[in-house]
Amino acid sequence: MTRRRIRGSTQDDVRRHNLGTILTEVHRHGCRSRAELTAEMGLNRSTIGDLVAELVEAGLVLERSASARGRAGRPSLEVVPCPDAAYVLAVDLGVRHLVVARVGLGGDVLDRVEAEPGRDWSELDATVDAIVEACRRLRVGAPDGARCVGVGLSVPGVVRQEDGLLRFAPNLGWIDLPLGARLGERLDLPAFLANDADLGALAEHWRGAAVGYDHVVVISGEIGIGGGILVGGRPLRGRGGYAGEIGHLRVNPDGRLCRCGSVGCLETEAGVEALLGAAGRPVDGGLRAYREVLARVAAGEPKAAEAAAGVARWLGAGVGMLVNTFNPDIVVLGGPLGELFAVTEDVVRRTVARSSLVAPHEQVRLAVSALGTDAQVIGAAELAFAPLLEDPIGVLTSLAA
Amino acid sequence: MTRRRIRGSTQDDVRRHNLGTILTEVHRHGCRSRAELTAEMGLNRSTIGDLVAELVEAGLVLERSASARGRAGRPSLEVVPCPDAAYVLAVDLGVRHLVVARVGLGGDVLDRVEAEPGRDWSELDATVDAIVEACRRLRVGAPDGARCVGVGLSVPGVVRQEDGLLRFAPNLGWIDLPLGARLGERLDLPAFLANDADLGALAEHWRGAAVGYDHVVVISGEIGIGGGILVGGRPLRGRGGYAGEIGHLRVNPDGRLCRCGSVGCLETEAGVEALLGAAGRPVDGGLRAYREVLARVAAGEPKAAEAAAGVARWLGAGVGMLVNTFNPDIVVLGGPLGELFAVTEDVVRRTVARSSLVAPHEQVRLAVSALGTDAQVIGAAELAFAPLLEDPIGVLTSLAA
Repeated sequence: MTRRRIRGSTQDDVRRHNLGTILTEVHRHGCRSRAELTAEMGLNRSTIGDLVAELVEAGLVLERSASARGRAGRPSLEVVPCPDAAYVLAVDLGVRHLVVARVGLGGDVLDRVEAEPGRDWSELDATVDAIVEACRRLRVGAPDGARCVGVGLSVPGVVRQEDGLLRFAPNLGWIDLPLGARLGERLDLPAFLANDADLGALAEHWRGAAVGYDHVVVISGEIGIGGGILVGGRPLRGRGGYAGEIGHLRVNPDGRLCRCGSVGCLETEAGVEALLGAAGRPVDGGLRAYREVLARVAAGEPKAAEAAAGVARWLGAGVGMLVNTFNPDIVVLGGPLGELFAVTEDVVRRTVARSSLVAPHEQVRLAVSALGTDAQVIGAAELAFAPLLEDPIGVLTSLAA
Repeated sequence: MTRRRIRGSTQDDVRRHNLGTILTEVHRHGCRSRAELTAEMGLNRSTIGDLVAELVEAGLVLERSASARGRAGRPSLEVVPCPDAAYVLAVDLGVRHLVVARVGLGGDVLDRVEAEPGRDWSELDATVDAIVEACRRLRVGAPDGARCVGVGLSVPGVVRQEDGLLRFAPNLGWIDLPLGARLGERLDLPAFLANDADLGALAEHWRGAAVGYDHVVVISGEIGIGGGILVGGRPLRGRGGYAGEIGHLRVNPDGRLCRCGSVGCLETEAGVEALLGAAGRPVDGGLRAYREVLARVAAGEPKAAEAAAGVARWLGAGVGMLVNTFNPDIVVLGGPLGELFAVTEDVVRRTVARSSLVAPHEQVRLAVSALGTDAQVIGAAELAFAPLLEDPIGVLTSLAA
């Protein structure tokens, strides 16, 4: 159960808090029986019934008979979200991709637009225009009466927590941009911004491979390799938001020169280009060529398998360091690394075992991302849902005003 | 200022909280003027005066004229701790060292006993007896009327937070020992246990090189190399308390075999034995031989300098990885690593710059531990002071009962 700090002690505050808790539970879990809500929240059945009724009246949730879930025993009512009651727009902005999705209450991606695949999105005005246009199309496609409660953005850069200013996005060449404010104005919506790696890790924690785990390392990335790290359920940011640059852990001091200026970084030794190079392919072949090599590995072709095993060993060495450093519950491999892991799992696991200490190694799980390329969209959607989940009726009332 | 959550809302709770806040401020800072306390706590002068009077009456603090600090302007009263009013016993237990200190309110080490230097402390009964005997001697030496409020222990192992059970101390061969409870019984004192690396980092944060910084990496150790890491001011523990095993970051895949089974760990490449080996000395020469080599480096002897530079580069590579991973405010080098840094600072700094990204590198400070071998004692003392700082009058009353 998600617990929130109760800020005041007036009845209104308590009721708002309880409404938010119920909606959050239903949103995260997809459905919650009245009995579960009663047990988890420590409130009596009639209070829960009363709170649920208010959310039903606001159109945010529905009640249906729990027998729909095939349960035995006394039938109970269960509460489910209305995906079309409230939705958010979620933007996943990368250097070479721009995906905008409409995500409904309950977390399902209801609709999605990808703007000009492969285009370079470093020109600010064009990028804002493209986002606004994609959002417009998605809103037009939404059912009548569905209320858009906000827009969330995943960006490849450092975001200032207090006001969502994009401090620094090196691969886009952007510095100190009020991107959230600008989009919020253009769209006339509350806008929220966060770092892509942080959102990826939070998304796996909320809805993916890391549900139930608070100490999480997500390693992913296509061009570079980055880490989203949760410590006690919260993103590790460090002093300035740069924490988690684990693509530059040096796994091989005799390795290749990295674009960071160092040599033998995890990124240069275990990334897409490393596998292509090891397999004798042009290193700029991209994901298509990468997947071809992995398909050959899966088919048992020795040369491809050898190339993949070499790269997998560097990946395992990097994971081992992270296991020693963070003693995580789970390490989630996302993107191309997850695809590599799928065909070199034994090699990766053996190397992780060799390069980590027994105690933290015994406690860690290795898994492939459950969300794949949707992780940032799902994380960004949660950002935008947060105010509604904090104060459901208050947010709907302010939208209506 | 240290803020605490106020658990209830009765007047007693609020008063207890305020008394604890004042005592904590005075204990941490050595002295606090009434004006500072008034400003920091947001209470009016007469309330502060009243609270301070209660602490004075309990014998925990004194008031003196602030002119003693040489300030200009209107003289103000300042509040200072009475070091002999209340003290704790602080135990720093290592595999081959056992130091017990008497630490007064205000944090000064007032007295100290080292039990049989160099002895192996892995035999539990003998170790408990030695701690009890050292504590007895320190209590006998304390001034009449000084009240011992608890004992804190720093241990080289994993401690379960909830109840202070020592889960696992590999180098002592101990598993699941209720060491705190056992000592508490023998000494008839509240006893508190924590991991040595965590306490070392907290001590630097509270009273050492990392005061004012919340994102801290402390790298230290004599036999092994370990890390105490603070994320947002709190120790990074991970799932099972094993986080921070940064001595086993692999800096050199072509390096020597480490006792962990891996090769080229930071510990094997940058530790005491590494320098001794590089300098052509027997690797088991210990700290004395290590310091002889460092003295030769300081004196400009080329062969020693070359050996030290090689080791310093591996240290720098390890620090660079930690800078990328944690984006810390400060990296503190303790013990022999601090001594190495003092004579190879340029080499370490250059390597850190080369092996970390520009943005986090610009934000990090490198420093030598300010507490040296006292860090664990000071950390353990703070553990034992915590209940008194939470509820000063309540703890004194329960002692008197």
